[in-house]
Amino acid sequence: MVAKIRNLLSEKGLDGFLVTNLVNVRYLTGFTGSNGQVLITRDAALFMTDFRYKIQSRQEVRDEFEIIVYGSYRDELKRIAAEYGIKSLGIEGNHVTLLSFENLKKTLEGVDIVPLYGVVEDLRVIKTQEELDLLKKSQEINHRLFWEIMNFIEPGKMTERDVAIEIEYLARKLGADDVSFKPIVAGGAHSALPHAKPRDVVIAPNEVLLLDFGVFYQGYASDMTRTVWVGSKPTEDFLEIYNIVLEAQEMVEERAKVGMTNREIDAIARDYIRENGFGEHFGHGLGHGIGLEIHEEPYFSQKVPEYVLKGGEVFTVEPGIYLEGKFGVRIEDMVYADPSTGGLEVITRTTKNINELKIE
Amino acid sequence: MVAKIRNLLSEKGLDGFLVTNLVNVRYLTGFTGSNGQVLITRDAALFMTDFRYKIQSRQEVRDEFEIIVYGSYRDELKRIAAEYGIKSLGIEGNHVTLLSFENLKKTLEGVDIVPLYGVVEDLRVIKTQEELDLLKKSQEINHRLFWEIMNFIEPGKMTERDVAIEIEYLARKLGADDVSFKPIVAGGAHSALPHAKPRDVVIAPNEVLLLDFGVFYQGYASDMTRTVWVGSKPTEDFLEIYNIVLEAQEMVEERAKVGMTNREIDAIARDYIRENGFGEHFGHGLGHGIGLEIHEEPYFSQKVPEYVLKGGEVFTVEPGIYLEGKFGVRIEDMVYADPSTGGLEVITRTTKNINELKIE
Repeated sequence: MVAKIRNLLSEKGLDGFLVTNLVNVRYLTGFTGSNGQVLITRDAALFMTDFRYKIQSRQEVRDEFEIIVYGSYRDELKRIAAEYGIKSLGIEGNHVTLLSFENLKKTLEGVDIVPLYGVVEDLRVIKTQEELDLLKKSQEINHRLFWEIMNFIEPGKMTERDVAIEIEYLARKLGADDVSFKPIVAGGAHSALPHAKPRDVVIAPNEVLLLDFGVFYQGYASDMTRTVWVGSKPTEDFLEIYNIVLEAQEMVEERAKVGMTNREIDAIARDYIRENGFGEHFGHGLGHGIGLEIHEEPYFSQKVPEYVLKGGEVFTVEPGIYLEGKFGVRIEDMVYADPSTGGLEVITRTTKNINELKIE
Repeated sequence: MVAKIRNLLSEKGLDGFLVTNLVNVRYLTGFTGSNGQVLITRDAALFMTDFRYKIQSRQEVRDEFEIIVYGSYRDELKRIAAEYGIKSLGIEGNHVTLLSFENLKKTLEGVDIVPLYGVVEDLRVIKTQEELDLLKKSQEINHRLFWEIMNFIEPGKMTERDVAIEIEYLARKLGADDVSFKPIVAGGAHSALPHAKPRDVVIAPNEVLLLDFGVFYQGYASDMTRTVWVGSKPTEDFLEIYNIVLEAQEMVEERAKVGMTNREIDAIARDYIRENGFGEHFGHGLGHGIGLEIHEEPYFSQKVPEYVLKGGEVFTVEPGIYLEGKFGVRIEDMVYADPSTGGLEVITRTTKNINELKIE
């Protein structure tokens, strides 16, 4: 990755690139602490942090980086710029605030500071084998968590909030670092809100229950949604919608190919849902990239800049139909755009068969 | 608060101020969702969000704001700027990234966009009665959590990580929204790292155990540290250090007054610890403001810009002594700078008597 950034330096005629977004610092170096910066020059790769992380940085940071422990970030940056003769410096324009930019200009007087956009984010889109393995492990923990929760839920006795709390607890017990976002546990009509917050409302029998959660494992996120039926006999209304969403979802998993655009992939599900008469009830995008962040590039939607699937991406496929006042259905898997086949490998192995998704 | 921002508009000769930092949006409006902006003009106060938060914003946003639900943020902003004749607009320079700034300039062509710094943050420093009550409630939950955890810990059987997981679980069970930061549970020599991560290491008898955690309640953070002894008889070494830290801590709580600077207040504890020969072992600041964020202005340290205590602030008082390879002691309360007495009211009611802080 350092070599790729050096190529960019040559291309743009810059002497260095400063990485301050912590997620990007972690991606490049392996460092997991709360304060660290990376400076890549034509012939040096430096990792900088403060005294609190002296020991941790030695344990975590990859060998290709020289570790610098500073008393004052600004003084150290000034010193390094002088030592390495940095006259022009790229920075992360999609992360640096106007305040930090002003401070940086004062610290590095005489240096030409050039905002670049999405440099490391673009690298992060294509996963390495190691990253793919961690994403799979993250979703494997999430899969086990899902079935523990299915067994845990006692309809008529527990609230949505009780279940959400249990998800957060069990995630850690199963070895995750944390949940990757606040769990969504939404019963009945509440499932029709795509970003429902768990309520102090008891999960009732003979209703829909939407479960959307994920974990972080060694920094890597998972994300899965299953819509399940509380009771033994789902209603016809529900089954009709469930099957449309499921077909739309599986159609994407079968038909999306490397070389297609994000909009074309989104349209596979969107067109099918529209043809079935529910187009206006699928109000969000089809999915999002996933890695060190729960939501990252690329996004799959009609409303975002075009992106051509290259192979190596990991993303979610999560169409939904939301009937206000009645119920909502969303089904979400994680997939890997496999460069060797050109198609999608489905990472999530949890069943989508509604007959196996009942809480009785 | 809206009136105060309008005064600033007049002062700076601006037609509007755009608030995009979500914590500041929550502070001004009460909105707790994940996407929302506030625009205050000379005679309008607007809250903007997307379709997902149509219902939630009506439930949460204070009456003084007009709610606007948009399809596209940029289109809506353009329309509003035209409708209200906005020719100059203040923005949050300590929050807006260079990328957002570029996008904003494109969206609002012809509008003079002026970065301002810390406008809402400055308002947030002085707490209202309602905020003070919520901060007290937050710490009250944290106090109960502390004793549940003291009773939960079984030395020799549980790891630091087991205890940290239980803290996160019980926080929610006791009615908190969440923990306010990742709990620190650090036994033995590990307690000497001020930012220790819980390890898969069993909590051993006859050792120090440092517990530092807090919760969010209705958005407001609490934060408390107690250093306890695992066993019945603390060592003399430990008691010596414990008492120095405790005396330093209580000295601040007794002597700090409205009108003193943050550096003077920090120095009360720092000088005492130095006089006792441990100056170099207290490597962090005395404390930080606390409110909607776990760390916010003002900061109490020798290394930050001067701040004069005005009355109305809530902050932490948390001196520590860290002996590398041996153990660390930190004691932390939340305090309120009471404008009616000019002194500090200690919010945290959890004992600091080491004889009551044993796990046997």
